[in-house]
Amino acid sequence: MRILVVNVNTTESMTKTIGEQATATASPGTEIVPLTPLFGADSVEGNYESHLAAIAVMETVRAYAEPFDAVIQAGYGEHGREGLQELLDVPVVDITEAAASTAQFLGRSYSVVTTLDRAVPLIEDRLALAGLADRCASVRASGLPVLELERDPAAAVKAIAEEAARAVEQDRAEVVCLGCGGMSGLTEAVVERTGVPVVDGVAAAVTIAESLVRMGLTTSKIRTYAPPRPKHFRAWPPAALT
Amino acid sequence: MRILVVNVNTTESMTKTIGEQATATASPGTEIVPLTPLFGADSVEGNYESHLAAIAVMETVRAYAEPFDAVIQAGYGEHGREGLQELLDVPVVDITEAAASTAQFLGRSYSVVTTLDRAVPLIEDRLALAGLADRCASVRASGLPVLELERDPAAAVKAIAEEAARAVEQDRAEVVCLGCGGMSGLTEAVVERTGVPVVDGVAAAVTIAESLVRMGLTTSKIRTYAPPRPKHFRAWPPAALT
Amino acid sequence: MRILVVNVNTTESMTKTIGEQATATASPGTEIVPLTPLFGADSVEGNYESHLAAIAVMETVRAYAEPFDAVIQAGYGEHGREGLQELLDVPVVDITEAAASTAQFLGRSYSVVTTLDRAVPLIEDRLALAGLADRCASVRASGLPVLELERDPAAAVKAIAEEAARAVEQDRAEVVCLGCGGMSGLTEAVVERTGVPVVDGVAAAVTIAESLVRMGLTTSKIRTYAPPRPKHFRAWPPAALT
Amino acid sequence: MRILVVNVNTTESMTKTIGEQATATASPGTEIVPLTPLFGADSVEGNYESHLAAIAVMETVRAYAEPFDAVIQAGYGEHGREGLQELLDVPVVDITEAAASTAQFLGRSYSVVTTLDRAVPLIEDRLALAGLADRCASVRASGLPVLELERDPAAAVKAIAEEAARAVEQDRAEVVCLGCGGMSGLTEAVVERTGVPVVDGVAAAVTIAESLVRMGLTTSKIRTYAPPRPKHFRAWPPAALT
Amino acid sequence: MRILVVNVNTTESMTKTIGEQATATASPGTEIVPLTPLFGADSVEGNYESHLAAIAVMETVRAYAEPFDAVIQAGYGEHGREGLQELLDVPVVDITEAAASTAQFLGRSYSVVTTLDRAVPLIEDRLALAGLADRCASVRASGLPVLELERDPAAAVKAIAEEAARAVEQDRAEVVCLGCGGMSGLTEAVVERTGVPVVDGVAAAVTIAESLVRMGLTTSKIRTYAPPRPKHFRAWPPAALT
Amino acid sequence: MRILVVNVNTTESMTKTIGEQATATASPGTEIVPLTPLFGADSVEGNYESHLAAIAVMETVRAYAEPFDAVIQAGYGEHGREGLQELLDVPVVDITEAAASTAQFLGRSYSVVTTLDRAVPLIEDRLALAGLADRCASVRASGLPVLELERDPAAAVKAIAEEAARAVEQDRAEVVCLGCGGMSGLTEAVVERTGVPVVDGVAAAVTIAESLVRMGLTTSKIRTYAPPRPKHFRAWPPAALT
Repeated sequence: MRILVVNVNTTESMTKTIGEQATATASPGTEIVPLTPLFGADSVEGNYESHLAAIAVMETVRAYAEPFDAVIQAGYGEHGREGLQELLDVPVVDITEAAASTAQFLGRSYSVVTTLDRAVPLIEDRLALAGLADRCASVRASGLPVLELERDPAAAVKAIAEEAARAVEQDRAEVVCLGCGGMSGLTEAVVERTGVPVVDGVAAAVTIAESLVRMGLTTSKIRTYAPPRPKHFRAWPPAALT
Repeated sequence: MRILVVNVNTTESMTKTIGEQATATASPGTEIVPLTPLFGADSVEGNYESHLAAIAVMETVRAYAEPFDAVIQAGYGEHGREGLQELLDVPVVDITEAAASTAQFLGRSYSVVTTLDRAVPLIEDRLALAGLADRCASVRASGLPVLELERDPAAAVKAIAEEAARAVEQDRAEVVCLGCGGMSGLTEAVVERTGVPVVDGVAAAVTIAESLVRMGLTTSKIRTYAPPRPKHFRAWPPAALT
Repeated sequence: MRILVVNVNTTESMTKTIGEQATATASPGTEIVPLTPLFGADSVEGNYESHLAAIAVMETVRAYAEPFDAVIQAGYGEHGREGLQELLDVPVVDITEAAASTAQFLGRSYSVVTTLDRAVPLIEDRLALAGLADRCASVRASGLPVLELERDPAAAVKAIAEEAARAVEQDRAEVVCLGCGGMSGLTEAVVERTGVPVVDGVAAAVTIAESLVRMGLTTSKIRTYAPPRPKHFRAWPPAALT
Repeated sequence: MRILVVNVNTTESMTKTIGEQATATASPGTEIVPLTPLFGADSVEGNYESHLAAIAVMETVRAYAEPFDAVIQAGYGEHGREGLQELLDVPVVDITEAAASTAQFLGRSYSVVTTLDRAVPLIEDRLALAGLADRCASVRASGLPVLELERDPAAAVKAIAEEAARAVEQDRAEVVCLGCGGMSGLTEAVVERTGVPVVDGVAAAVTIAESLVRMGLTTSKIRTYAPPRPKHFRAWPPAALT
Repeated sequence: MRILVVNVNTTESMTKTIGEQATATASPGTEIVPLTPLFGADSVEGNYESHLAAIAVMETVRAYAEPFDAVIQAGYGEHGREGLQELLDVPVVDITEAAASTAQFLGRSYSVVTTLDRAVPLIEDRLALAGLADRCASVRASGLPVLELERDPAAAVKAIAEEAARAVEQDRAEVVCLGCGGMSGLTEAVVERTGVPVVDGVAAAVTIAESLVRMGLTTSKIRTYAPPRPKHFRAWPPAALT
Repeated sequence: MRILVVNVNTTESMTKTIGEQATATASPGTEIVPLTPLFGADSVEGNYESHLAAIAVMETVRAYAEPFDAVIQAGYGEHGREGLQELLDVPVVDITEAAASTAQFLGRSYSVVTTLDRAVPLIEDRLALAGLADRCASVRASGLPVLELERDPAAAVKAIAEEAARAVEQDRAEVVCLGCGGMSGLTEAVVERTGVPVVDGVAAAVTIAESLVRMGLTTSKIRTYAPPRPKHFRAWPPAALT
């Protein structure tokens, strides 16, 4: 099967990291296609960029010409998964939800450790709407901007592992979710520092997407995610995208 | 003061209706500027169009050249208010929240009557995130598409008033909110049919926006709605918008 | 229009302060009538006095001989708003709810800073019943009794501003509500100390009451707030009040 | 021990009924003292009368000259229990809470069947504040005014038993609470009609008050229910009460 | 009446302590029968032992040959009360729920102080399912294993009283529940240290069981706790138990 | 890898059905080992049998002599998963939670259709404790006892499909979970009748268990699910089991 793994920002190196993580988790026979949005910001750290990413991810998937079996939206706490579910017949998996859903099988409560403090409310909102907040002990920020993860990996590892340790000790989290698509690769260090299972959202999403496809399950079209009704559009999509 | 009232769809006649309703409510000295998004769908009835509207409303407001004192997002249950709050220093009021917030001063519980069934989950989500769902008795759909409100107003009035009556009788709503920016003008008929107060979101939002400006209050910039950080954008905004 | 602004305690100087704040916020053409309860305690700092204030406010409004367009109950976290809504045909606005409702348009979460620790549970209960607790980050007490606000304003300002800063820093509040009818006038100092918007309940209530009147909206009489049924009363109201 | 059982309305025959029910349940050695409020309405069916009853019950208990060991507030869904807890050193038990608390030991969910529809929101609010709403399947109204219970007992029995049956069948209640102080005596008929345990609040409250006294437990005075602080009162209490 | 008070572990000295506490609280005429499970662990400190205790308590009660009027399950936060309710026609009272239910009549919020940290989640889950968690300020662990309560009572008293004080000061608990069947006897020391009412679950359960019997109330059999349907059992009960 | 799939009742034919469903879903290279509890009831339809099954499943897994990589508890709404997590180092997946967790990726809300009405509360409780109840539209009973599924499959299919249709139409479920380990095989008929995705818990659990193993994730041992502490046991395990 072929799974599209769509980054939410336009930084190609981050798309590459995400793609490698997805590929490392994928079953034999699964082809991972990493995609970078056709437009948008080089990092998504707030609502404006996240709303832009939402529509960019949708248009990027719509512009993809080959057949595919599932889509993973690889941004943590971003808007837009519901729109993808309307547009597509194949399963759509958001990494925020995949990580939380997986964490819940591993311990009584989980925490998310993300990048900047301003990302915390977005993640909290997504978890609340997804019905996955009850067992969330906390969403914590390491204080590192997204792109810093690539610029200074050693400092990133340290900051994130320390924040994860606080989640375990102070908030009584029993599992930690790495709250950014680009944090793949930090898992080991955080496990070592905290002694609890650490969930990477991209890996979790790959297994869930594969499982849904394998069971022949896809998005319910009966109501919320029915296909969009026919519309007239003004100035959309932009000429450059078509 | 000047208040921008931004429609979420590209149907100019609906922008006009919304603008008239806002003007009818505005205080002397308030100038209402109705805006139609620079791009997007002619009606917003689902997540794809709503996500597109979110970013379209933001870009439309950013492209507005004159000074203004507040912005009203005049779509019911649509995405994007958080992004506007990041981008702007002036107050932002969403009509979904304005209507609910006003209804709560009038009765113990309120219902929303909207257009299509598929809009119900979007409205429920917005109310939940806004912390305004506890006293919401129900969100009900009349079954009418958005543009039908203009095409056959008499049938619209009847369908909406009947649904509102069911909300009052079956769900024990004590107040009814008209769940669509384009429903201004139906108020009287629904009051007559149900005997309960009926809140129009556009009118409610105008009074709230004016009040915030008058009290010198605007969006807190300390965390969630801090201005976006500097970014590099790919292919955005589209040339046609600049 | 004429709005009655009813203090909950019998300290006339506090009624005066509240009335001045209301007048400063009112639109041209709005007459503010400050009222002191005909009976009750000189400060309300607990359930006994609050229950007494509830009925005192109701009887005081009933004894007011002139016509009026709205009533504001100017006590923070006090009982009784529901009774006023039964008795009156005009809108009733409680300042606890007005402040919270306004704060929710300004930031993702708000805190209330009140006087004594024992007032905290009353405020929490009112917010819970009003469906306004979800986005409440905390209700904090400065430790100052109500009348101390007048006796030593400088100390009051300092204590309240410090507590507000703790709400912002520790509880992540993005907006602060001043949790006492007599705190009008402290707004500026708290803004300066915290850097977040500060909402005064009396001012917020005046704008909401005016808005409801302007939109022709008033309390739903269909169920919870239907007028009291005819009764026989024993020894009530007391001769001195009639 | 001596337990004061305070009616919330001024109808002496109802006080008598309540007193008889309490006496029938009391242990040997417990003296039940039924009290009628010194002022107030002959039936309490809404917020105005309930707020008046709250303060009337408090003043009536304060005016009681003999020592006593506990107080029962025998009104369903009425305001004021918190004030009594501040004023007194002995345990205070509200029948609304006593019934719900007892019902929770008997089945997974319970319903309350009360008098008029307008009493429903008051009861719901009391249960919510008491943290006893999670297992409440419904609060239902029989449509009978309070005083009708005495005027036409046969019709009352029938109406209440039918409503109780609906709670069991439609709302899946496993226990029924009789939602009015004056419904003592209907228990048997409702058991017969529904086949589920039926809890009378007055009886439940007597056993709880006795138990607290027996265990030497009384209201915590550390914070919420600390004694009122010293105050100056205007025109209170009325001369006629002193 | 005769009440079975069933310990959840097989330590006879602890059964004796529990029995003495129950007897000290029981009314004249109530016979307390302390029972030790026929099988199971000498202390219950986790889910495996708790699930084993659940079935052991049920089989032990079923094997009891004499008539009885009520059963108390004297383990804090343990599984199994629902099964007893199915099997028996007489009332069943769990001490976790009895303590919480009683505490709610004494203060606005309560905390539980238990033994080991790993018991905390079990207690939290039981309170959540029982609908008694809303007013629970915290469940805290003293860090002492169950059997240590008997081995070094002086150290136990000190550790538990200190933790209780933290609950009152940091979590704002107004009442403390002793979170272990074997903590009877510590009440006085904790009251002295904290100044708040302290509830012993065994004592509370005895009064509630007696009250239910006195009022002629028992478990609703209409649905959740209907008697088990006829079954074929494999290898159960073990020969040694029959 | 080897996954133990443990039935909760002692009906071997049902263990066989469950095992076949698991095998049909398993990846190449996964060995499914179906297990029947060493003791217990031939069907589990209530709390007594469910508590017995909890401990029986644990002892059966402990008695299994070969190595294994994960365990699936294949009972819907049964007790005991937490105990398995304590006892084992490998992942444990409950089918109730697996089904709900999977359903949440497919639609905005899901319903469970189970056997007898008395199973509904057990399932609701498990979902609540698992933090998976927010998006649960309803748990509905078809009225069929567990063993009837095998005795009259045609009637079972019809009853379950009809109840599923009611969940979709009346409760607005967008996905249906088959609420019994033995319902595997009914999927197709329910999809056909309702038009929504239908999730089988056994299949879902197999994919989740495989995924956890593949990602190297297992139960957090830091607190709630730490291994049992050393204990002395009385009369356990029964001689016949050892």
